[in-house]
Amino acid sequence: MCGIVGFIGEGNVQEVLIGGLEKLEYRGYDSAGIFVVDIEANGHLFKEEGRIAKLKSEVDFDLQSVVGIGHTRWATHGPAATYNAHPHRSANQRFVLVHNGVIENYKEIKEEYLQGVELSSDTDTEVAVALIEYFVEAEELSTKEAFKKALSVIKGSYAFGLVDQLDPNVLYAAKNKSPLLIGKGDGFNVIVSDAMAAIEHTNEYIEIKDNEMITITQDNVIIEDVDGNVIERESYIAELDANDLEKGAYPFYMIKEIDEQPAVLRRLVQEYQNDQHEFEIDSDLTDDLLNSERVYVIAAGTSYNAGWASKAIMEKVAKIPTEVHLASEFAYDIPLLSEKPFFIFLTQSGETADSRQALVKVNELGHPSLTITNVKGSTLSREASHTLLLHAGPEIAVASTKAYTAQITVMAILADALRALKSEEAGFDMAKEIGLAASAMESILSERDDIKTWVDSNLMETRNAFYIGRTADYYVAMEAALKLKEISYIQTEAFASGELKHGTIALIEEGTPVIALISGELTSAHTRGNIEEVKARGANTMVISTHALSREDDQFIVSNLNELLAPLAMVVVTQMIAYYTALGRGLDVDKPRNLAKSVTVE
Amino acid sequence: MCGIVGFIGEGNVQEVLIGGLEKLEYRGYDSAGIFVVDIEANGHLFKEEGRIAKLKSEVDFDLQSVVGIGHTRWATHGPAATYNAHPHRSANQRFVLVHNGVIENYKEIKEEYLQGVELSSDTDTEVAVALIEYFVEAEELSTKEAFKKALSVIKGSYAFGLVDQLDPNVLYAAKNKSPLLIGKGDGFNVIVSDAMAAIEHTNEYIEIKDNEMITITQDNVIIEDVDGNVIERESYIAELDANDLEKGAYPFYMIKEIDEQPAVLRRLVQEYQNDQHEFEIDSDLTDDLLNSERVYVIAAGTSYNAGWASKAIMEKVAKIPTEVHLASEFAYDIPLLSEKPFFIFLTQSGETADSRQALVKVNELGHPSLTITNVKGSTLSREASHTLLLHAGPEIAVASTKAYTAQITVMAILADALRALKSEEAGFDMAKEIGLAASAMESILSERDDIKTWVDSNLMETRNAFYIGRTADYYVAMEAALKLKEISYIQTEAFASGELKHGTIALIEEGTPVIALISGELTSAHTRGNIEEVKARGANTMVISTHALSREDDQFIVSNLNELLAPLAMVVVTQMIAYYTALGRGLDVDKPRNLAKSVTVE
Repeated sequence: MCGIVGFIGEGNVQEVLIGGLEKLEYRGYDSAGIFVVDIEANGHLFKEEGRIAKLKSEVDFDLQSVVGIGHTRWATHGPAATYNAHPHRSANQRFVLVHNGVIENYKEIKEEYLQGVELSSDTDTEVAVALIEYFVEAEELSTKEAFKKALSVIKGSYAFGLVDQLDPNVLYAAKNKSPLLIGKGDGFNVIVSDAMAAIEHTNEYIEIKDNEMITITQDNVIIEDVDGNVIERESYIAELDANDLEKGAYPFYMIKEIDEQPAVLRRLVQEYQNDQHEFEIDSDLTDDLLNSERVYVIAAGTSYNAGWASKAIMEKVAKIPTEVHLASEFAYDIPLLSEKPFFIFLTQSGETADSRQALVKVNELGHPSLTITNVKGSTLSREASHTLLLHAGPEIAVASTKAYTAQITVMAILADALRALKSEEAGFDMAKEIGLAASAMESILSERDDIKTWVDSNLMETRNAFYIGRTADYYVAMEAALKLKEISYIQTEAFASGELKHGTIALIEEGTPVIALISGELTSAHTRGNIEEVKARGANTMVISTHALSREDDQFIVSNLNELLAPLAMVVVTQMIAYYTALGRGLDVDKPRNLAKSVTVE
Repeated sequence: MCGIVGFIGEGNVQEVLIGGLEKLEYRGYDSAGIFVVDIEANGHLFKEEGRIAKLKSEVDFDLQSVVGIGHTRWATHGPAATYNAHPHRSANQRFVLVHNGVIENYKEIKEEYLQGVELSSDTDTEVAVALIEYFVEAEELSTKEAFKKALSVIKGSYAFGLVDQLDPNVLYAAKNKSPLLIGKGDGFNVIVSDAMAAIEHTNEYIEIKDNEMITITQDNVIIEDVDGNVIERESYIAELDANDLEKGAYPFYMIKEIDEQPAVLRRLVQEYQNDQHEFEIDSDLTDDLLNSERVYVIAAGTSYNAGWASKAIMEKVAKIPTEVHLASEFAYDIPLLSEKPFFIFLTQSGETADSRQALVKVNELGHPSLTITNVKGSTLSREASHTLLLHAGPEIAVASTKAYTAQITVMAILADALRALKSEEAGFDMAKEIGLAASAMESILSERDDIKTWVDSNLMETRNAFYIGRTADYYVAMEAALKLKEISYIQTEAFASGELKHGTIALIEEGTPVIALISGELTSAHTRGNIEEVKARGANTMVISTHALSREDDQFIVSNLNELLAPLAMVVVTQMIAYYTALGRGLDVDKPRNLAKSVTVE
């Protein structure tokens, strides 16, 4: 949430900033803005509520600028309005700041340092830029010293980009818990929240660590630690293909990404198989896992749901007890851990602040960890002991689809590799079953028109809905409900079928949609019974089942799969239900209200 | 769900049946009915959709009857309508049956045995009574033999009461997985789902076990096993005080039960303390617990939420790792267990079918278990290795309140007793802290008028709402949401505050009520930040906090408590929010639609 781009040097500054913000729009789209200083040292600020497209139409691209910073916002303090948009300027207009994160002590700072200062926004960010001005004015510090002192006062999470209009040859940056990278160019340098924002201009990046002070000029980057010691750090090459971002003929990224899932599954089998067609995982990682007694999966949102769908695979295939925890809860309420725990972080972006906070705690405790992520070199990848990649290609739609199925697939591959190392009986060929899951996906994807027809007749007017299922179907129901909820704004809850009658069944009214998932042989009769219970109370029921467990009236039938992998195909039906519901309701499928893709505040 | 009463012998049969059904109405109130045979062997059937009161107004109390069966229904197959109400009669009108449970193979039975039979209801029950008639007619079996044969064909859960109109001197009964008891009287005998239904008439009861055949006459009770061997079984005295059931001056049981909570907490301290004012628990139980490595709490609905609120107490006080599982899921998806597991079943009624099914599995695996229940002698109490009682007095309102806080309190007492046996440092005096929690409850109960005022201005029109909190506050939020949802029909979801932004925040609109709970010091700043996030998107926020963490604008403030026990007082505010919301909307607080108190089907 919130994206930052900064640029200094030769080039059309406004174009780089706006182009970068367009790539970062997934991180928040409540409002956006850029600030540039032209060759005559005049400052120009452009801010707009809403999408980047609106801002773009207001920007003067003819200005000859030498430095600039831009920002796309996901509101944390104060509503999404132009006056709260970044960049924020200090009262004397000299200092201009962009910020991603949350300043926890902004009220205290206001009281202690800024009694006389009138602020023009509700944001915590404006307090930061006012504080820098205060230190320059009241204590006669240089800009750099004032910035440094402000950082020592500010508590919370941040990535900052700072411009001093009186000295447009320098761009300042710093971060704590929020992502920020330096991009090195020829005759220019940039700062970005995500390499994707500047990949067109450079593929050479330098990591910034927490509490470092970064001073950037057209040709030079200086990194200093808190004591002012200069740090030398190697750059790395980001492997991102700008073409992957194009949605081509698709109306929305989401449906493109839904369609890519069978290919992602097949790619994962290839990537993780050795020449003997066996799954092979780095032995440092498998050694750590085999030495542990218990796996703790830590994740948020869709990744959390993928954790649940993977738990049974890890327990039944690799025979390692597995717990799943919400990242935002785990960091502040660590359960009694087993003596040899192993932590798996599931995060598409590798930047999820809640997960990162949990990883910081895990590292403090000295336990081994693995990040399963789509983004090589992301924060959680760098800071965990091990990384496995999702190889899903960039996921642009805010509502995650292919990352979810890729996460389950990587967990299944990992579980199977561990099983082989433990010489446990397989019972089935995991690579083959993943291939079958990919085929089952393709088969159900071909029924999109029928799904659209059902959605158009059943979900256009409803304000609420339920997904029910047992065991693996319950975990898919959790993800199905989240997907429908986040892009269609229908309040959808997932329930373990048997739990509904312990209270929530009170919400069932004439016509309430209840979608049941049935892929488990042992529980299918019970879920059928629960369907009768809600039908008896007027519910409009729909059943998605696997072929072997299907009945004549079932709406959608998925090919038979090993039950552990059935979620991979079952979920695709529910992804399409969410997609067509949002589409039918005329909503922006890829950029649902209030959300942001990579959640980098806690 | 579904309640059964049967009576044979001297007395006003209709009055006993209707009086008993009134006591059992908490088990379901979609429809009800009674069937009696008078002294001239004429049968009389009375059935009505809706509440017992409606049925009562239709019954002829002047009939001189000798035997009868009655039923109050919670619909599982077919809508709540008179034609689906029990008792059900066979086609020739001779056999009449009441049933609680779910017959899983009713479609198969219909196809195999009942091709020519026309059925007049949608119920699985009518299939059972038709099958009995079939065996009597087609195979010339006696009623008892036909009943026995039908039981051997029927798969699923049931408690049956059967009357043969041609032989009104006998009442037949049998059960499998659903509760049923025999009550012994002077010149009469009864069968009941719950001793409460007949406690005015007798306090002497005999347990029935699964798959036994019960033949009851006015003066005699015969229990036989499947092979026809007669079984002798001692009766027991049920300790229920009929006066406890009276709600007195209260308009609803729910508010009476909310008010009783401080007294229940104090009673529990007394009950579990020895003469030295130390908590003392049966050493067989504590030995089993101290020998185990990991506790698995199994529960459903409100008890499940109590399990979560207790997890941290068990882990932090007794230092035993604790997992919480949904009963309906556990039985069919047993996780990889530790080598020495211990199971705790939380169930107010001790009859919850989902929990009982899990206990059956646990017993098959040979692991030790504890049931924490309000009902002595209930099924889960009898079948677990150990029992601890809630001493909360009968809970009549369908929405549980005092059982929830009593469950947490008993878990806290148990944890503290274990801690003492392990010679771990207490850090605090548990008995004193429970006393403080009781006082904090009283203090917040005295603010009911303010809560009602807030509810009346904020929750009368809304269709949805959210509760948020972190760690212990999140677990209270789960219960708060369930309570509001089940009696006010407002779709309320609980979220770990930090998780909201990972999707569900898309549902926040102008005016959406978001109620935040803040009792944890470590997380309070983060939850405050999350409140700002939803406020920025238009939410109508409300904060319930503890005194130490409160801010000026907070709506309700609870006295400071040890953080582990804060849920006991925090939840009381949310119980009153639910109560006054349902009251303000003119709903039947004690008997919400679609629900039943003791959920005895899976």
